[in-house]
Formats: sequence, structure tokens, C-alpha cells
Amino acid sequence: MARASRIYLDYNATAPLAQAARDAMIAAMDVVGNPSSVHGEGRIAKGLIEKARGQVSDAFGASSADIVFTSGATEAAALALSGRGFACADVEHEAVSSWCETSLHVDGRGAVTCTDPRSNTLQLANSETGIVQTLPEGLAVVDATQGFGKLPIAFNWLGCDMALISAHKVGGPKGVGALVLKQGLDISAQILGGGQEMGRRSGTENLLGIVGFGAAAHASAQMLADGVWDQVAERRDLLQARLEDGADDIICVGKDVKRLPNTLSVIMPHWKGETQVMQMDLAGFAVSAGSACSSGKVKSSRVLRAMGFSDLEASCAMRVSLGPDTTTDQIERFANAWISAYARWKHRAA
Amino acid sequence: MARASRIYLDYNATAPLAQAARDAMIAAMDVVGNPSSVHGEGRIAKGLIEKARGQVSDAFGASSADIVFTSGATEAAALALSGRGFACADVEHEAVSSWCETSLHVDGRGAVTCTDPRSNTLQLANSETGIVQTLPEGLAVVDATQGFGKLPIAFNWLGCDMALISAHKVGGPKGVGALVLKQGLDISAQILGGGQEMGRRSGTENLLGIVGFGAAAHASAQMLADGVWDQVAERRDLLQARLEDGADDIICVGKDVKRLPNTLSVIMPHWKGETQVMQMDLAGFAVSAGSACSSGKVKSSRVLRAMGFSDLEASCAMRVSLGPDTTTDQIERFANAWISAYARWKHRAA
Repeated sequence: MARASRIYLDYNATAPLAQAARDAMIAAMDVVGNPSSVHGEGRIAKGLIEKARGQVSDAFGASSADIVFTSGATEAAALALSGRGFACADVEHEAVSSWCETSLHVDGRGAVTCTDPRSNTLQLANSETGIVQTLPEGLAVVDATQGFGKLPIAFNWLGCDMALISAHKVGGPKGVGALVLKQGLDISAQILGGGQEMGRRSGTENLLGIVGFGAAAHASAQMLADGVWDQVAERRDLLQARLEDGADDIICVGKDVKRLPNTLSVIMPHWKGETQVMQMDLAGFAVSAGSACSSGKVKSSRVLRAMGFSDLEASCAMRVSLGPDTTTDQIERFANAWISAYARWKHRAA
Repeated sequence: MARASRIYLDYNATAPLAQAARDAMIAAMDVVGNPSSVHGEGRIAKGLIEKARGQVSDAFGASSADIVFTSGATEAAALALSGRGFACADVEHEAVSSWCETSLHVDGRGAVTCTDPRSNTLQLANSETGIVQTLPEGLAVVDATQGFGKLPIAFNWLGCDMALISAHKVGGPKGVGALVLKQGLDISAQILGGGQEMGRRSGTENLLGIVGFGAAAHASAQMLADGVWDQVAERRDLLQARLEDGADDIICVGKDVKRLPNTLSVIMPHWKGETQVMQMDLAGFAVSAGSACSSGKVKSSRVLRAMGFSDLEASCAMRVSLGPDTTTDQIERFANAWISAYARWKHRAA
């Protein structure tokens, strides 16, 4: 049927489950025990969790840190930020900005100025634009959700107290993530009960999810080392060049600054992002207008407005985010489809 | 190897993954989208979540209620109870009692007296003893984690405002659960961000976990309707009779009150629960001393002390919890092994 021919270009919203994660999760389905149980079945389950913790720690260069598994980066943000009164910029994900004063300045190129790193939180890379931040030494919290796996970084060397990461952005399953924190750093648990995760996050562990996270993190570190993302960047640059050739008035956001290798954010003034996404969807391509929004509604991008784009421009953005498997042929097909749709739109608008 | 011959009798700690849940999860591994994305891939993912919500709702008789998926009953408890100052009894799970005043009275048969149902929380069934409570009309929160799937109940008829349930106790995966609440009831979100679950619980949904929960809930409702748990109760009663025959001074907790069909809690005064569990583990059986404890340490049971048992008695308890697949032969083998170990212990103690 038609689905097989669809082309998925929304990796920043979520990546397909990696083969390594799938295999590890299916194998772990045979494990019976509760990781908190003292009997053999429980110890086997516990062993899988600790193996995954090691895999995530290795992939994130976090051997000197503690890894607290959570239900995702969103819960990790609540654990790191709730009640702290930290400051951030308005380019942060809502999972972060919901807990902070959004008082930090963002310039037109997307760069955030931290005022007091010890009480600031800053993303490593933006989900909508892919723009990468320079992290100040001593930063309290880095949201590494989009950068982890795509950029060569190590928590040990970032100089941050805490980091938020998510499995499903690196080919793991949705619904699992972690708060990474300097060893022994004191945080107040948000979810109380059985005292799992060294008392920092209670609740029977998401065994399959954690196993999948570990396997995906391990595989993604290997891909990064193998230079896979350099090839992805070449394809992203090809896409950018094709779209720029096809549409004079296109704006490629973050074109001249450091970006994630896979992300292309374009603004086509007056052509609503929502409309672009729907037309591309009908043509067989999954892309996004800004970040995935739970309500299913697409709003003007807060991120782009924070960078100084007008409301109109911020409502006419489309994000294309590539994955390790995205081919040049897929890029060509998408570019052709988008340019055709653009021409039709321009013709109607004229 | 030896593992194949092991016998798992710790279903109250966690149930093995049901075949229906496994199949549904593996099928869902091919679904690419983020449920919050508006494109086709996103809508397919969203559809799976809504299908699972319907399955859980049907299985729990909760058509008149809202289902908020969480990372487990522990998170659901935090969502329902945090900051409310409710009262409970000391037989509740720590995920519940951590948020409450443990001021409600428990009698020697395990029955809890609610003082003001509107500000009380009460478990449907106890994880250690299996003792089932009579829920007062208008109860604020019922912890239905252990009763769901094993007892014929419907949220629509319980007269409670909210209920906590967990997937992995009914054959779903670990790390997913739900807060069930009367339609439109106002609760404060604990995890902020993208606004998923109607703003009550943000974070990209645990797609595979939720799909597994739905499938397991559906299968468990079918088993309940088919009378599977009546057969389990017969095997539990057989086990109880065998152990009583083999050890004169055994105490079977909750023997004369309504219990879960699968649970047997026994006290063997002076023979530590921890030792019983270890000896049974070495003999190839997974059982528990009280509920699974995250630290891996086994303490004197708070639940049994609340019922009036002495510290000594409360530290000499063993819980055997059966599942739908537990056979009479497995019960016989366990009874023989336990009685032999008991005889050796008694000989040494004499």
C-alpha cells in the first residue's frame, strides 16, 4: 500500500526505533522479574537496567556522573528544574520553560546569553532550528535532548551540573529518558515510593524502555564515531541548496551558525507552515512546522519569534529533519515535491 | 540450562509479559511517528494510544472516566495525592503513603476504617496479604494496582473519584500505568511541557508501553470473565492447605477474610522471611518477603505490623503470589520444597 512509499523527514520529533533497540527489547521481553526483587528473576532484570545505564553513560561520556532513568526528558526537566526558579531563554522547549523565568536574551542568530550559569538552563541544540549553543562553564542544566547522539559531546567535559536526554531522539523507544547529574548532586525526588534510582525517582522501572534506550544509545555513539552524521549534513546541505534554488524568497534559519547536522528550518513568508506540512503530508512526506505540538494545532513558532522573526514569518516555518537512513534520492524527491507545491501556491497567491 | 525449570510465584511483584501485550508491542515497533505530530505517521501513533485508552477503559469498567497514562501507578499516585494532605492507613504502598498522613485505623484482620472518604485513600487489595477492602462511597482515591484484573470491579460503580492502576501487574510492560479519574475532575499536572494527556501529564507518550498496557488489560478482562482466577484461587487454597499440613505453627494471614485469588501470605515465626525467600530461590522458586523493595533489602513488614503482628512475626513472612499459568504441579513442587526447607530449619533451630 501507499505507506511503504512514504518518506519520513521528522527525526527531531521522533526517530524510528533502531534495529539494535528493537532486538534488545524483544530479547528482554522474556525476562520475568521485577528489578527490585531479590530472587534470581529480579537480579536478572536489575542487571539489564544496570547494563543499559552503562551504555547510556558511555554514549554520553558521563562516566563521572549519575544517570537517573525517567519517563523521558520532560520528566527529567521537572526533576531538575521544578521549584528552582532558574532562568532560560524563550527558545527552550516548553518542558523546560514551564519551570523557568524566560528572561535570557536571544539574538537574531539564535544565540542565548546566560547571565548566571549556576541558575540558568540552556539547550545544547534547538529542536526547531537545530541551532547549537555555546555552553558556559558551570551551567546548571543543559537540555541535551536534540544534541545527544548527533553531536560529539561528553557530559564529563561540558562543565554542567545536570543534563536532560531522551531515548526516542536517538532511536530508542518513546517514554524513557534520563537526568544525568554530577555524582552525588542532591536533588529532591518528585515521585516518591519504593525508592528506586537511589531514591531519586521511585516506581518500578520501565525495563523494556530502559533496555531499548541503552541499546539505541550504544548504536548511536557508534554511528557518530563512524561519521554518519557528516553524511547526513551533506544531504541536509543539498536539500537547502535545492530549496534555495527553487524559491528565491526562502529564508534558511541558522544557515550561517552552527546547527545540528540533520536539521533544516525554512521560512517561506506568507505560506503558512501548517499548509506546507499538510501539502507535504498529502504528497507522502512527514515534516513539521516547528516542534511537535501536543494539541495537534500548529502555532506561530515561539522560537522564531524569540530570534526576532515577525509573527507572520514565525507562522510560515517548516522543519525538515533527516535521519541516518535518509537517502539523497529521498531528499531529491522531497525537494521536487516542495518546489512544485511552492510554485502552485505562488501561482494562486499571485 | 537450569532457568527453564524455575518456577515463578511472585506475580504480585510483577507478572510476566502477556502474549497479547508482546504481540501488540512488537507490531507497534514499526510505527514511526510521534503521537503529537500532525502528519500521517503521527496520526497513526496517536490512534494506537487512543485504542489502548479504550482497552484500558473497557477492562476497568471506566467508560464514564478519564484515563491519564503515566509511567506507572507510582507516578499516578504522585499526580493524585501530592500536596493534598489526604489520610491513609499504614498498609498502603509507599508510593501512596509517602504523600499521606498514615492515621487511618487497621484492625487485626487488615480492614481499614475510613474517617472521611473524601480525603482518604485506600487500596482495593493489599500487595503483601491480598486482603481486599470494602471501599466507602465517595472515596477520594483507590489504589487499584493489585485488584485490577484479578477482581471483578468497574470504576464506574466504585463511587471513587480517582483510581491508580499499573500495566505490569496485569501482564503489561513495566513502567506504564494510569490515573483514572471522574470525567473532568480537576488535577494539577506534575510534569509540565508539551501538554499531552489533555494537559494533565506532559511528555511524549510511552507508545510501546501504552500499547502493551491496552493489550494486556484487554486480555486480562477476558481471563477474568472466563473464570481463570477462580481456578487460581483453588490452587492457592491447595497451597495453603499443603503448607498448613506441613507446618503446625504456620500463620496464614487473611485466611478468613476476602483476599485476592492468587495471594498467600504466611508467617513462620522465628524463620526470617528473607531466609525463606533465599532458600526458595536456591531451590528454584521466586517468591517474596513482603512486597518488592527497591533497596534489595528485606525489612520487617510494615503492613503486618499495622495489622498488629509483632516485629518478629512481621519479619518472618513470605508471600507466594500465583498467576493464571501457575499449575497444580508447580504448587506441589513448591509446597514440597518449602516443607523440606522448613523441616531442616526446624531441625537446626531445635
